[in-house]
Amino acid sequence: MPTALPRTSVEVSDFQAVRDETERLAARLTPEDQQIQSMPDVSPTKWHRAHITWFFETFLLLPHLPGYEPYDEAFQFLFNSYYEQAGPRHARHERGLISRPTADEVTAYRAHVDASMHRLIDELVVARDDLADLVRLGLHHEQQHQELMLMDIKHVFWKNPLRPTYNERPDTSTTAAGPLGWVTIDAGLAEIGHDGDRFHFDNETPRHTQYVGPFRLADRLITCGEWLEFMADDGYHEATLWLSEGWATIQREGWEAPLYWEPTASGWHVHTLHGTKPIDPDEPVVHISYYEADAYARWAGARLPTESEWELAARTLGNAEPDGNLADTEQFHPLPAEPAEGTLRQIFGDAWEWTSSSYAPYPGFRPAEGAVGEYNGKFMVNQYVLRGGCCATPAGHVRPTYRNFFPANSRWMFSGLRLATEV
Amino acid sequence: MPTALPRTSVEVSDFQAVRDETERLAARLTPEDQQIQSMPDVSPTKWHRAHITWFFETFLLLPHLPGYEPYDEAFQFLFNSYYEQAGPRHARHERGLISRPTADEVTAYRAHVDASMHRLIDELVVARDDLADLVRLGLHHEQQHQELMLMDIKHVFWKNPLRPTYNERPDTSTTAAGPLGWVTIDAGLAEIGHDGDRFHFDNETPRHTQYVGPFRLADRLITCGEWLEFMADDGYHEATLWLSEGWATIQREGWEAPLYWEPTASGWHVHTLHGTKPIDPDEPVVHISYYEADAYARWAGARLPTESEWELAARTLGNAEPDGNLADTEQFHPLPAEPAEGTLRQIFGDAWEWTSSSYAPYPGFRPAEGAVGEYNGKFMVNQYVLRGGCCATPAGHVRPTYRNFFPANSRWMFSGLRLATEV
Amino acid sequence: MPTALPRTSVEVSDFQAVRDETERLAARLTPEDQQIQSMPDVSPTKWHRAHITWFFETFLLLPHLPGYEPYDEAFQFLFNSYYEQAGPRHARHERGLISRPTADEVTAYRAHVDASMHRLIDELVVARDDLADLVRLGLHHEQQHQELMLMDIKHVFWKNPLRPTYNERPDTSTTAAGPLGWVTIDAGLAEIGHDGDRFHFDNETPRHTQYVGPFRLADRLITCGEWLEFMADDGYHEATLWLSEGWATIQREGWEAPLYWEPTASGWHVHTLHGTKPIDPDEPVVHISYYEADAYARWAGARLPTESEWELAARTLGNAEPDGNLADTEQFHPLPAEPAEGTLRQIFGDAWEWTSSSYAPYPGFRPAEGAVGEYNGKFMVNQYVLRGGCCATPAGHVRPTYRNFFPANSRWMFSGLRLATEV
Amino acid sequence: MPTALPRTSVEVSDFQAVRDETERLAARLTPEDQQIQSMPDVSPTKWHRAHITWFFETFLLLPHLPGYEPYDEAFQFLFNSYYEQAGPRHARHERGLISRPTADEVTAYRAHVDASMHRLIDELVVARDDLADLVRLGLHHEQQHQELMLMDIKHVFWKNPLRPTYNERPDTSTTAAGPLGWVTIDAGLAEIGHDGDRFHFDNETPRHTQYVGPFRLADRLITCGEWLEFMADDGYHEATLWLSEGWATIQREGWEAPLYWEPTASGWHVHTLHGTKPIDPDEPVVHISYYEADAYARWAGARLPTESEWELAARTLGNAEPDGNLADTEQFHPLPAEPAEGTLRQIFGDAWEWTSSSYAPYPGFRPAEGAVGEYNGKFMVNQYVLRGGCCATPAGHVRPTYRNFFPANSRWMFSGLRLATEV
Repeated sequence: MPTALPRTSVEVSDFQAVRDETERLAARLTPEDQQIQSMPDVSPTKWHRAHITWFFETFLLLPHLPGYEPYDEAFQFLFNSYYEQAGPRHARHERGLISRPTADEVTAYRAHVDASMHRLIDELVVARDDLADLVRLGLHHEQQHQELMLMDIKHVFWKNPLRPTYNERPDTSTTAAGPLGWVTIDAGLAEIGHDGDRFHFDNETPRHTQYVGPFRLADRLITCGEWLEFMADDGYHEATLWLSEGWATIQREGWEAPLYWEPTASGWHVHTLHGTKPIDPDEPVVHISYYEADAYARWAGARLPTESEWELAARTLGNAEPDGNLADTEQFHPLPAEPAEGTLRQIFGDAWEWTSSSYAPYPGFRPAEGAVGEYNGKFMVNQYVLRGGCCATPAGHVRPTYRNFFPANSRWMFSGLRLATEV
Repeated sequence: MPTALPRTSVEVSDFQAVRDETERLAARLTPEDQQIQSMPDVSPTKWHRAHITWFFETFLLLPHLPGYEPYDEAFQFLFNSYYEQAGPRHARHERGLISRPTADEVTAYRAHVDASMHRLIDELVVARDDLADLVRLGLHHEQQHQELMLMDIKHVFWKNPLRPTYNERPDTSTTAAGPLGWVTIDAGLAEIGHDGDRFHFDNETPRHTQYVGPFRLADRLITCGEWLEFMADDGYHEATLWLSEGWATIQREGWEAPLYWEPTASGWHVHTLHGTKPIDPDEPVVHISYYEADAYARWAGARLPTESEWELAARTLGNAEPDGNLADTEQFHPLPAEPAEGTLRQIFGDAWEWTSSSYAPYPGFRPAEGAVGEYNGKFMVNQYVLRGGCCATPAGHVRPTYRNFFPANSRWMFSGLRLATEV
Repeated sequence: MPTALPRTSVEVSDFQAVRDETERLAARLTPEDQQIQSMPDVSPTKWHRAHITWFFETFLLLPHLPGYEPYDEAFQFLFNSYYEQAGPRHARHERGLISRPTADEVTAYRAHVDASMHRLIDELVVARDDLADLVRLGLHHEQQHQELMLMDIKHVFWKNPLRPTYNERPDTSTTAAGPLGWVTIDAGLAEIGHDGDRFHFDNETPRHTQYVGPFRLADRLITCGEWLEFMADDGYHEATLWLSEGWATIQREGWEAPLYWEPTASGWHVHTLHGTKPIDPDEPVVHISYYEADAYARWAGARLPTESEWELAARTLGNAEPDGNLADTEQFHPLPAEPAEGTLRQIFGDAWEWTSSSYAPYPGFRPAEGAVGEYNGKFMVNQYVLRGGCCATPAGHVRPTYRNFFPANSRWMFSGLRLATEV
Repeated sequence: MPTALPRTSVEVSDFQAVRDETERLAARLTPEDQQIQSMPDVSPTKWHRAHITWFFETFLLLPHLPGYEPYDEAFQFLFNSYYEQAGPRHARHERGLISRPTADEVTAYRAHVDASMHRLIDELVVARDDLADLVRLGLHHEQQHQELMLMDIKHVFWKNPLRPTYNERPDTSTTAAGPLGWVTIDAGLAEIGHDGDRFHFDNETPRHTQYVGPFRLADRLITCGEWLEFMADDGYHEATLWLSEGWATIQREGWEAPLYWEPTASGWHVHTLHGTKPIDPDEPVVHISYYEADAYARWAGARLPTESEWELAARTLGNAEPDGNLADTEQFHPLPAEPAEGTLRQIFGDAWEWTSSSYAPYPGFRPAEGAVGEYNGKFMVNQYVLRGGCCATPAGHVRPTYRNFFPANSRWMFSGLRLATEV
């Protein structure tokens, strides 16, 4: 189970806990499952496992561990994702064509790098904060890929008419969502962004002042039941509800429901990591695009929150951070039966919430030096920010300042929505 | 020549002045020139002339002038651009395939609608402010298309190896740009957006408060000479200067310079409305994408301004609005030889300046009721705001609050850049 | 009206008759009509008019008329179709983007080349058979483009929701097609190909021996009425009737009927050069692809003839060649009320008949020397031969040995089918 | 090792020998290797293994073995290749996305079907010639897929920068090719096609008469050394050597050599099933498209043979059929040191030889009844015939009448060329 990482040092056991969690998630998959790239956005499980290993090899072992030689020269090419400063790389959309190294060979690669990382941590990291920072970055990077592995394998199994399952269905029942409540936040200056205490990504900084006007925020996520009402009201066929680009997209793609929803003789069903099941009207809707979130909000007479509004509200009115992720069971936290007045429910760890904010640098943003500076900054165009963390997000990645981001037409992540309005 | 429209009423002569300017701009073109759609973004001149006429027919004459019958039923289909509420429409990318109505037949259509509009203005508009508002919107809409006509015909002629010219080269010489100066603006709360006095588009409202941090803004646009330095320093081949999506774009498209630039044995030349000429190093660079503007700024150790920063600076430190557009000669205003301390030059009417701001609704934004509500709001995704107006912009469209917007890869408008930095 | 060209000499009046016919066909079109390229296969009328002029300029005037200078250097680039040996050329799919030269300017170009050609014919051709051959080739080339002009403008008008007409509907009525008869041809050796007497294209030679087995050939073309039966029997939805590639094509393209057919409340209608009219069940079906012709034949328990079978039958049992084309009225020859026993009807000048023969060189085929050698040979792959000539074919192009060819998915030519079977 | 199948009966041991050979070929591959579809034309090894099993299940077991139930209903959908009459099927280009069933699960499927087939053969086939014919068809079908498995895995490994090898390099050396000799065949009537004795595919019949003119045929295949001369003479850059469509293809694809050839500092190398090695100038060139074969022939002043010419020559002058395939070592038969006068070398079992003949039905061709009638006939358009068999072809598939066929731009099969000329 992933854990929030302590900030002041990195122990071998911290390192290995994250590495082991990756292998635990992959252990349910056959070598063939780990091979598939079901669309260009998806990477094979095997590739994820190797790439996050390459990260440690490239940014820690090769430059810093004396005498370390590359495990395999070709891996530098095969498992570089997008780091221009780390040299040329294999074409992203062809990751599924690489049968070798096999899944077992990747396991061996991981073991080799782990052993060397143990040496590096024991011998060098203790005395060098800069290396500790890099190790921590590598571990958070690996955790991000743990979430991607779950998102991706869900899509891989979706493309297979046999509809394999990733794991067993959890033995839980949902609590009733109840009526939507609202909280009101007054206008004023707010400090937005991470304060630098504990681990964070560069895109969460610098903390800076923003004027946030008065607004209202829904006290929970929109449910599948509410989404069915939108569909029943012809939401997918009423052009005036949609952004022009969104309307063109749903026409072209033939979208009539969220991703993974399927009509059956007994109503809408949904594909999950634990199989196909009937829609649960009390669960939060997920796997919707920005366009769909925006259209729903317009239909509901509301709008999406900005990321500043969301962060301000989450910091002051959010429920406690979840004590552990629900990743490999794809389930949502039970809703409190009676929400406390003026608090927000489901703010952390259920669904990534679309905001209306385009992903952009904060005032004064400076990416890190060197290749790891490519981690976030170069993607700051034509993407929209999502906040809050989903059921597949490692716990250490759930915080008020965390900025996730996807293009407006992406749906394969666990993306939902929370409404906002003017006061 | 277009003129700023008075706000309190609309006279037939105001109306006809704008309509006549459109015809004056088209008069230099053959029927064949008016037929061409050189890429999906471009519309044929003839289509522009008909579409802006359709706007008056659809939103004024048909609903409000008693007894008015459509000039031709098919025109409702052919010349609707994107108004879902006004019914189905011809495919945008096939506008160049419509040989009939001919250019002459469009002229007859315009005359018919003009005559009816005269009646409507004389008989109805005087007593109804709502109709006066719609007429004014129609005229500003027509002026926007005047600029598009010039942008589009420039591209049409670019695709022709014969390189026809639109008009004669103006008999002017550029003044030296001189070194780049900077102005500093202090942090504070600013009122952003139009105050509602005089004509404006809905996307400029509501005026609202924003906190704008301290920043510095360059006192003029980046010149072609400076762009040549960027190119000479391998700016188009250094991946770390580019947004990831921008780098992919310039690789795919093979971009090595701004649009319309061509290498020749005697150096870089540029295609203009008045023919091909050598690059003038003192002129502002135009026809660059957001990606290129952003990469240049990174290379220069600076960034693009936000639209709030730009608006605040333009309102307080901008030079006076130009007294007339330079549209059909594609020339730039001469730079003042000695800029006054702390003022901004070339802020209005030279080049559309890319900002780093994604095009989004202002807090509390509400589109107009009915089909004209589709004018702006539904485009508010995956586009970036440009400010300031260019040499082809009608004078009445040059103001501190005006928001132009284009996708990040667009280059066929007169787009340039002005640098900003933190203080 | 085009005429069969005498073989032993070329007179100025012969030349000018063909040239004038081109202009007569174009005279019904506006400058805008002449500008349109409605799909990559289609060329603008204006381009046709210029290209066939370029042919004379490039292959006759420039190399052979002393002192002749190019009318416009750029035309060498703009109006070369596909002759690699004649230098680089404008991209085929962008022919519709060239507004200049205008239609009027092309008229002037034609007049200039005509005057020079008159000189060349008077002064040089009389004494040089090789030049006479080239002039004749140029004139037959121009006549081929006359047919293309009609095919292309029909498609251009089809893409326009206004459905303009090219000319008036002819005042004729169809005769009843009557039941399909069959003729039987015995097996034996046959001489296939042109004997070299009179004008012919290189692809019709050399005449050579083939063994043609016994076969039966339908005595007339398949009618629209018969095609409606195929459609009513779900012909477009029964996979086993189709070649695999054909089935994929009709799925992808959504074909449910021949090109230009449209369902209406009062039954199927068809777009013609003289407007939209109800399907006439006695007319031959045209505008079908090879895939459709093949599927129909399979449905009917028959097959397509080979080109050898067709040529052998046409030479021995065909009706007389038509005395003039019906090009610009798009009508078919009336069927003889009582066909003579053992003769073939509609063999010449009604519809291009798909054969099952892939377009290939005859044994011993040698293309002409020089650039005109690119005329036919280099297209001999992945195309199928059609025989017989259609209602838009100039009379001089209707003969038993003439080989027309198109890719299997082409439909915008006047293509129909005649059934064959084994004996 | 595959063997030519006896014609009069089918024994369980015959059946199992072919089935075992498939597994022997797959045994060298990891589960991951068996998963990859490196381009739409390629199928995963695992898919091949399942599909050829599905063939027996669908056409033999389900209709004929009493009480047989489908092994897995979903396999009917997943492993149908293109048989419309056998129901809907998985999209061809998504075969690589199906991780389940795994390679091991396919092995179990094969064992299950084998056991049932043994029963069917023992109990039913002995008494029913029609079933024996279907079993034989299934086995020949499986052998065709054995060749495809080798072609496909070669391509799969080519797409992997690690360049895995399929097997060990054979310990052989080539004999010198020596100068090209020619044989002359006189004109006359020839019987073309299979005489019906022994197994054959429907497309080889009916045997029929053709007139074959006099021609000369090269006595061996074109070598890699000769191909290097073509390249050195700028063969890939001289437009006049190419069919128009071929020229467009090599421009678009950037082809400068046969598939699998790579330039290195020490000359051209080639990727094979046993690794990358320097070009051997005495080996036959393979992995060329029809376009390249045709261009080479034109460059050499020759042409490709027709399939009739090839068959006539092979039957009368060909060397003996090889006694076994060389499939899994990718090597060529050694050339006889001193060819006998008037005989043809390398006619069988070295490279598929492009002919100039489009793939078409023989006169009187009738596909088999039922779904297996889709085996050949529906592909008879836009493909070209290849003759002779290659180093990966099972021995029972090497005969004078065998017709292989591929689109003109295909290169991943072992395709070479033999020249022909007129006499």
